[in-house]
Amino acid sequence: MKIRKIDHIGLACRDAAKAEAFYHGVLGLPVEEREDLDEMKLRVVKVRSSEVVLELLEPQAGEETVTRFLAKNGEGIHHLCFEVENVAAATAYLIGRGYAPVWDKPRPGAGGKLVNFLKPKETGGVLIELSQSRA
Amino acid sequence: MKIRKIDHIGLACRDAAKAEAFYHGVLGLPVEEREDLDEMKLRVVKVRSSEVVLELLEPQAGEETVTRFLAKNGEGIHHLCFEVENVAAATAYLIGRGYAPVWDKPRPGAGGKLVNFLKPKETGGVLIELSQSRA
Repeated sequence: MKIRKIDHIGLACRDAAKAEAFYHGVLGLPVEEREDLDEMKLRVVKVRSSEVVLELLEPQAGEETVTRFLAKNGEGIHHLCFEVENVAAATAYLIGRGYAPVWDKPRPGAGGKLVNFLKPKETGGVLIELSQSRA
Repeated sequence: MKIRKIDHIGLACRDAAKAEAFYHGVLGLPVEEREDLDEMKLRVVKVRSSEVVLELLEPQAGEETVTRFLAKNGEGIHHLCFEVENVAAATAYLIGRGYAPVWDKPRPGAGGKLVNFLKPKETGGVLIELSQSRA
């Protein structure tokens, strides 16, 4: 499989504005986007550091995944996303190598990009997202 | 302060060779370096993904920091390192903003680069290393 780069790092936070005040206001990383992903029940602030985006993820009422992470681990790095050329091909390749991606076929994630995930137990403790390059 | 990019991401692992088998052998990220940092009691395998290095950190007998992390959290992302132009200036700036870097003045880290750290409680749960660009 062909990884192009680390696309983004997802940070679970309780208050995206407070996290922005640190990563943007103190560290000086530029804000690329602020959005409420209503379908995913997440408030997201994206700050950029060169080719990598830090996604500050604040769960809203009823959100489950990040909420569970926060309850278990507290705030911190939630996942690492690699940009791949072809996420369907990467999924098939990983299954062929004996891995168990979350889905048999990639699904549209935030922003409509095709994505899939590998769970931490298969990757040395890191939730890994694979995301397809924009065409 | 001027951040140039994410320099590396440190992953705490119990077996660097096993982590390498995944990040290099399966994901295909090229190995940049393998080294035993005797002073730090760490075995390190560096794999590269574009401008960011993943440092696979396996503690050796007597190592404390990563060992404690593994005991508490298990394997996973241990720290995030930003490359800055001037880590002494960044340290002074952060202290001026009310933050408490680990040291008042940067110290030489692995490879002789000047580094300092911000603790997770000040950064939204992320141990942040600041590392000075090579001259």
